[in-house]
Amino acid sequence: MAFVMEWAYSEIKRIQNLAKNGKLKDNPKWPLIILETPKGWTGVKEFNGHKIEGSFRSHQVPLPNVKKDEEELDLLEKWLKSYEPQKLFPDFKVPKDTLNFVPKGNLRIGMNKHANGGEILKDLILPKIDKFEIKISKDKRGEVFSASMPTLGKFLDETFKINKKDNFRIFSPDELASNKLDSVLNSTKRGYFWKIKEEDEKECEISPSGKVMEMLSEHTLQSWMQGYVLTGRHAFFPSYEAFLPIVDSMVSQYIKFIEVAKDIKWRKPVSSLNYIITSVCWRQDHNGFSHQNPGFIDTLLTKEKEEKLVRIFFPADSNMLLAIVEEVMKSKEKVNAIVADKRQIRQWLTLKEAKEQIKTGAGIWDFASDKNPDIVMSACGDYQTQEMLAAISLLKEELPEIKLRFVNVNELNVLGSNEIYSKGLSEKKFEELFTKDKPVLFSFHGYPSSIKQLLFDRKNSSRFQINGYVEKGTTTTPFEMLVLNKVSRYDIVSRAVETVKETEKTV
Amino acid sequence: MAFVMEWAYSEIKRIQNLAKNGKLKDNPKWPLIILETPKGWTGVKEFNGHKIEGSFRSHQVPLPNVKKDEEELDLLEKWLKSYEPQKLFPDFKVPKDTLNFVPKGNLRIGMNKHANGGEILKDLILPKIDKFEIKISKDKRGEVFSASMPTLGKFLDETFKINKKDNFRIFSPDELASNKLDSVLNSTKRGYFWKIKEEDEKECEISPSGKVMEMLSEHTLQSWMQGYVLTGRHAFFPSYEAFLPIVDSMVSQYIKFIEVAKDIKWRKPVSSLNYIITSVCWRQDHNGFSHQNPGFIDTLLTKEKEEKLVRIFFPADSNMLLAIVEEVMKSKEKVNAIVADKRQIRQWLTLKEAKEQIKTGAGIWDFASDKNPDIVMSACGDYQTQEMLAAISLLKEELPEIKLRFVNVNELNVLGSNEIYSKGLSEKKFEELFTKDKPVLFSFHGYPSSIKQLLFDRKNSSRFQINGYVEKGTTTTPFEMLVLNKVSRYDIVSRAVETVKETEKTV
Repeated sequence: MAFVMEWAYSEIKRIQNLAKNGKLKDNPKWPLIILETPKGWTGVKEFNGHKIEGSFRSHQVPLPNVKKDEEELDLLEKWLKSYEPQKLFPDFKVPKDTLNFVPKGNLRIGMNKHANGGEILKDLILPKIDKFEIKISKDKRGEVFSASMPTLGKFLDETFKINKKDNFRIFSPDELASNKLDSVLNSTKRGYFWKIKEEDEKECEISPSGKVMEMLSEHTLQSWMQGYVLTGRHAFFPSYEAFLPIVDSMVSQYIKFIEVAKDIKWRKPVSSLNYIITSVCWRQDHNGFSHQNPGFIDTLLTKEKEEKLVRIFFPADSNMLLAIVEEVMKSKEKVNAIVADKRQIRQWLTLKEAKEQIKTGAGIWDFASDKNPDIVMSACGDYQTQEMLAAISLLKEELPEIKLRFVNVNELNVLGSNEIYSKGLSEKKFEELFTKDKPVLFSFHGYPSSIKQLLFDRKNSSRFQINGYVEKGTTTTPFEMLVLNKVSRYDIVSRAVETVKETEKTV
Repeated sequence: MAFVMEWAYSEIKRIQNLAKNGKLKDNPKWPLIILETPKGWTGVKEFNGHKIEGSFRSHQVPLPNVKKDEEELDLLEKWLKSYEPQKLFPDFKVPKDTLNFVPKGNLRIGMNKHANGGEILKDLILPKIDKFEIKISKDKRGEVFSASMPTLGKFLDETFKINKKDNFRIFSPDELASNKLDSVLNSTKRGYFWKIKEEDEKECEISPSGKVMEMLSEHTLQSWMQGYVLTGRHAFFPSYEAFLPIVDSMVSQYIKFIEVAKDIKWRKPVSSLNYIITSVCWRQDHNGFSHQNPGFIDTLLTKEKEEKLVRIFFPADSNMLLAIVEEVMKSKEKVNAIVADKRQIRQWLTLKEAKEQIKTGAGIWDFASDKNPDIVMSACGDYQTQEMLAAISLLKEELPEIKLRFVNVNELNVLGSNEIYSKGLSEKKFEELFTKDKPVLFSFHGYPSSIKQLLFDRKNSSRFQINGYVEKGTTTTPFEMLVLNKVSRYDIVSRAVETVKETEKTV
């Protein structure tokens, strides 16, 4: 073993030296040690006529009946005594010469900076988001169009420009360009460590120093990101919405890890895992049903408990996205998910208004609201907000006598109880937004069941009618998607009229 | 290409012949064709001074502005014309000699039986479950102990025995023995196709004809099972509960597939995907927090919509498990998940009673219920049922004046609206079980949020107090797990007392 370790170490040194002197010609072949040992090695050899060591029988509890079976107990005793503990620990103590071997101070493996990334964490320098604001006129809200991902792309490009050191990377399981974040290629490239073909050098935007890790494997990128963040750096993970459930289990385990690690006193906090969920279910004009699965946030919701480690954002437009990204990049030890699409969409709020709203996580939009409403219209998600406001326009035109209020929800968790969910609104604040007892039509980006589980603990929550994506997916136009899932402006208008009629009857 | 295909085909034939004649000495090396082509091959070569063919720029829409840009439109035209459609399809028709090439009748690729497994599906011969019934006395319910997985193991062993042909397999990402299903090794072995070392032949219960596919890769086994079921056979997939979320995304995509495939007229239904979810979060006496994640069923719940393809079962004891397994094995085109642990647990119902209850999916247990209850106590899950009944015993002893009803829920979906969930109870039936307006204490095996989303659409659902696994996990005793998550008998008793007091005040 010592010999093989020595060989591996010298190989690594040899390759590193070649690289330093520019003499490395091809992709290096790093040493790899394969150690094959029998399962349950040095344990019980045989029992009851069956092989134990080197067979599946040594898994977990090889001798299950030691409490009752004398023969098993004997075998257990023999096995444990075979390590000669009385010689190794005379007088039940660890001998001095063994203790002398144990590293001290900063040489202890737990003190390795890579195992406590918070210790070396440097804040990311963030560009001023004002620079990327989409200008809108307060008289003509909704008339300017912008696309969220390209806006984010410009912000991230600037982030790479002003952070020279290796302190920030993008982990991108899908094509950066397909998610419309490719403006970052102005200031960095895709990371690529193998030899680059001459013809590709200019054309493929790849380089060993590139900070965009692009590879069609959500699993690999998730691991890379965890390693990068845990060693004290910052990261963004943009993904097609439908493919994030591929890492459901890995993210769940990571959340468990933070939860436990937070209680370790000497450990310093690291930056957050930041997911950008884009190429969403409502816009699958050419991909279709396999690309329609908003379920990743449902997995995150199951992990949001007392510890409040998860935040899930639905910016309604580009300015809100910028404000949220700024907050998220400064946060620590959270798992943040931001759901926003990449296509042109109507813009509603100024950056100042957006910043104000995200403090609460939801807000009444006065320009689309009346005083003393008969009914509250609410939406969470960019396309749902756009469509709900279209429904409100129709209602204003055709039935101005119905008094409405529009509430935009930009952070999912606000709907839930503040005992369980980070940013969960107090009952008072909740009633300020949604009134005490008026009916609410709620259009949600994802599955209605996500909202139902959050609202369950609210008083009088049966006044909410919740619609959203109900697995009616296919390759079709954005408008047909809304119709199939019963959240088009016409569905909403007729629902609003029915609801107001019903309410009048019962009053 | 033709040459390489010919070579591969002859290699396959050669290996098959060697095997038939017993002359195959080592693991065969099957032919493998690697075809490397440029991305966007035969498309636009260059544009705007950039390479398109053979670069990332040919992904999705290589010429995005053809509607506005004359130059792009020209390039598009040239590209499409390069295939010479006017020669290939003179007079806009497919030439006769091309049509003659197209296979007819059963030679059409879609008629391949492997692509329409339902066509060749044979029902599995099922053993009589009565044979495996755990005998309990109606006067002494809860006094007999049994473990669900070993009981299931015996049933599956018999299933292998009476189905000689390759019509049933177990796909086991964890150790079969660790999940206590190893009695099936009486009648079959673990499948293993490489050469077996002589010393392992007797000892490792492996064979090329073994019907248990055991490999520590949930992904691989999920694919194998899908292939096996889609080609007309039957399967069971036992897994540690915490590791099924690894295949969240694959299962979601499979459900989408069935949903769409169901509408294809010529396609015959195949058998269901059947998951056994065991080694559950409540019993992690030596594994701990990483092994505690009941979230797979939450993913399944997001996919349960109008089409009603998903069923989720929580048998309270071994007899109920047997009754459910029988139903599940006969079902078609569903995704069934059965959550049941592997340790010794109290037994409650006779097989006859269990069969009766699973028709509804929930039932009042008269032996633990009073008439005209003040409060309903309900549980879903084996350990939760056992603990809730322990709480009821304590209450009966200490506070016999409180009138109680116990409702066991063995199928999760019954709680939800029957418009969305298969087996969702009618409002009438729901009130028969849970009363119209009495408070309900509900203990659930998994996350309380699963129950909240289901109950949201029920009238007056705020009378339910829902407790369950709230991510308070660690390596500890079963009883401490209940205490940490506030579902121990003492928590329930004090909750019941508080609730009855509150109700009395308000009445």
